[in-house]
Amino acid sequence: MPHIALPPGLPGIRGAMAFRPETARPLNALVEILLTGPSTLSRGERELIATYVSSRNCTHYCHSIHGMIAAAHLGGDELLVKQVKTDFMQAPITPKLKALLTIAGKVQQDGKLVTTTDVDAARSLGSTDLEIHDTVLISAAFCMYNRYVDGLGTEQPDDEALYRERGKRVARDGYVTVSEEYLGTNAHVGTH
Amino acid sequence: MPHIALPPGLPGIRGAMAFRPETARPLNALVEILLTGPSTLSRGERELIATYVSSRNCTHYCHSIHGMIAAAHLGGDELLVKQVKTDFMQAPITPKLKALLTIAGKVQQDGKLVTTTDVDAARSLGSTDLEIHDTVLISAAFCMYNRYVDGLGTEQPDDEALYRERGKRVARDGYVTVSEEYLGTNAHVGTH
Repeated sequence: MPHIALPPGLPGIRGAMAFRPETARPLNALVEILLTGPSTLSRGERELIATYVSSRNCTHYCHSIHGMIAAAHLGGDELLVKQVKTDFMQAPITPKLKALLTIAGKVQQDGKLVTTTDVDAARSLGSTDLEIHDTVLISAAFCMYNRYVDGLGTEQPDDEALYRERGKRVARDGYVTVSEEYLGTNAHVGTH
Repeated sequence: MPHIALPPGLPGIRGAMAFRPETARPLNALVEILLTGPSTLSRGERELIATYVSSRNCTHYCHSIHGMIAAAHLGGDELLVKQVKTDFMQAPITPKLKALLTIAGKVQQDGKLVTTTDVDAARSLGSTDLEIHDTVLISAAFCMYNRYVDGLGTEQPDDEALYRERGKRVARDGYVTVSEEYLGTNAHVGTH
């Protein structure tokens, strides 16, 4: 049961966002830019970074929904997503993505753990400065979203099918559009 | 030296934001709403929460600048800010703020550590659900800002006077306005 009176029937971050639309707007804008905006990292790669960080923070709602969004972008490959959560170094992903996940994992613990060696490794495998920046910020942002979801004691259902269905919708329509159902149709253009 | 080629002469989060104005916009909008928007918590109280969380994350730039912004809102009382950083239970602040700082400190570690007892304690001292929500989100958000600043290896000067001077400006003008100097005058209205 949530620690405060969140609107019922909206699990995870959705209830928290519906409770406080003023903060939901920049929270949604940030994830939309980072995970769906123009980037040389694919949407699947970026969702895998978000999923991995959420998994390390043990935030069930976030690693489940982002894992399913990642899978939707990766041809439905839920097994790959689970491999990334449990041991990404053995997963069939590119060495470059492994180097970025290494950086993301350090940021999840403490940004000061990222070393020049980590960054040089990512760069030698083809990462640009913008990709490294976005990896750091995706990891940092999910350390926020995860704490927000957990710190309010939000409902985090177990049903995988629920996440699978919603993951497909978010992958198709994006975060801002899908959030309109509980924030109102103009939630993203500043009417709150 | 930063891990990526950030614009020179902009310490802490400022260089990171100037590097990526698209993400700077929601990052600034979020902190502006949480720390300067309408609230039954004073601006000084909210800045103390941000300062305390940043101090626990050992992010020098963030706890220094937000500490000075807090002090600017608290009649220049830098000693009080230092007491909150080091041992807030002994600081001359309200029992209600101590209860909220307890919640913020747990969110900084892991949102799942927040208990019903913590929330009931805050509520019995007069905290509203919105105040508890915002405390959780301020703490979560600073876990993001701190990791962003540290994870990119940004410059974090030692000079207290620099933070004091800038803290006064931010306290007076707000985050969005002050960031215009490096993001452009329309950075907050979506021209990027």
